[in-house]
Amino acid sequence: MHEDDERYMEEALRMAAAAAEAGDVPVGALVVLDGEIIGRGGNRREVDADPTGHAEIVALREACRTMGRWRVDGATLYVTLEPCPMCAGTLVNARVARLVYGASDPKAGAVRSLYELCDDPRLNHRMAITTGVLAQRCADQLRSFFRAARAKHKARAIK
Amino acid sequence: MHEDDERYMEEALRMAAAAAEAGDVPVGALVVLDGEIIGRGGNRREVDADPTGHAEIVALREACRTMGRWRVDGATLYVTLEPCPMCAGTLVNARVARLVYGASDPKAGAVRSLYELCDDPRLNHRMAITTGVLAQRCADQLRSFFRAARAKHKARAIK
Repeated sequence: MHEDDERYMEEALRMAAAAAEAGDVPVGALVVLDGEIIGRGGNRREVDADPTGHAEIVALREACRTMGRWRVDGATLYVTLEPCPMCAGTLVNARVARLVYGASDPKAGAVRSLYELCDDPRLNHRMAITTGVLAQRCADQLRSFFRAARAKHKARAIK
Repeated sequence: MHEDDERYMEEALRMAAAAAEAGDVPVGALVVLDGEIIGRGGNRREVDADPTGHAEIVALREACRTMGRWRVDGATLYVTLEPCPMCAGTLVNARVARLVYGASDPKAGAVRSLYELCDDPRLNHRMAITTGVLAQRCADQLRSFFRAARAKHKARAIK
């Protein structure tokens, strides 16, 4: 773990909270290069009606617009939840140098849980990986969201 | 194979050719629902400086804009090359019902070659898969592109 990892993960948690307020599942991400945040995003799948609207991709596309190219060599991506296959594949394609995530995703995680896409020696790029940064808080944020969504659904069913 | 598969793959080959003319690797894709093309795209990674600008994602995002939602239930996606991990994961996330591709990609293919992401029983969606439609023509188109790119590079090195 690097000394700034928790500070950046705090910011990713704030992006996730904003996504939840807009009605999306709370996941947040940042792209950091040379100590500067060059892309940030929360999950926007519902808001944009876009299957690629996960936080990692929103943040990476912003970083690429900032840099004017599709590679983010040297950059670190922070995200509150272990990336799914789509997002893990995007990090490889964008040549992210380092991935830092919070909570594990046993159902769809493609970095350690179901697959190891981000450091597969058969693919044309691999990255350094740090897991479990502020993991409990990242997991709690998701759990609270789904608990509230279930309660709302139940209340609606009773009415 | 369904009776219209080759006809739709011909159209995907045309999208791929247009991508090559714009300077991108020739890959083309279509999204078809109830006999209607609701999204189409060629590879736009270089043109848009976007790591997610693969043909499948360009076509899917157009289909989602057309339908106003992030799911394309019932749709078939045609693509000239076996999807990479990013694209295979996107097809799962978008709930594509059927995937038809042309050439295999032994280096990064995530449907049959390196992974089987599109029908993994552990993920929350699986799709029907047809491989090898107009495979030779899809592969030849890519080979010609890379041969010409190498020749151009060599000519530049000699100058």
